[in-house]
Amino acid sequence: MNVISELFSPPYYAVIFTSIKNEDTHGYMEMAVKMEQLARSQEGYLGMDSAREKTGITVSYWSNLNAIKRWKTNAEHLIAQSKGKHFWYESYSVRIAKVEREYHHF
Amino acid sequence: MNVISELFSPPYYAVIFTSIKNEDTHGYMEMAVKMEQLARSQEGYLGMDSAREKTGITVSYWSNLNAIKRWKTNAEHLIAQSKGKHFWYESYSVRIAKVEREYHHF
Repeated sequence: MNVISELFSPPYYAVIFTSIKNEDTHGYMEMAVKMEQLARSQEGYLGMDSAREKTGITVSYWSNLNAIKRWKTNAEHLIAQSKGKHFWYESYSVRIAKVEREYHHF
Repeated sequence: MNVISELFSPPYYAVIFTSIKNEDTHGYMEMAVKMEQLARSQEGYLGMDSAREKTGITVSYWSNLNAIKRWKTNAEHLIAQSKGKHFWYESYSVRIAKVEREYHHF
């Protein structure tokens, strides 16, 4: 991505996904693109920022906790999460955080 | 970085810094290394994850809001912030968020 997310109106929620990929990530890129498109179509989805070196960080933004719960249990996303856990990621962390304040310089 | 931060004990705070750099970033890397070292020595600092493509994301973790406020107003950090705003970053966003839940797969 070459742009960063606009700001939203706090309070809203951020899911901070931090990961290290395995060497063999066959099928990963196609799934990542598919999941990003699917996330965008979910109710309560606000936006997403992503960057990767060896460490990858994806932060997605959601209007409330229920939207995050629905997305976590979305059938296609469950498949992606399972493949991620068992094949693509050496390790990952997920943090769910309530955005209280924000500012920017655009 | 080739490792991701350990987990801490919610609630704690995340500062999500998302940025796009300018073409000319003379002096940036030296300052980034210096600021990371300085952040680690601050009271209330817990950890940091960082990744950059064109978009860069740095998430730092802090035990409370006062620690974030002290770090934001640290004299050396103020100089770095000013250089970032005026020279190194085309744009950036800062979000301050309370981490409520977390899980991992290590």
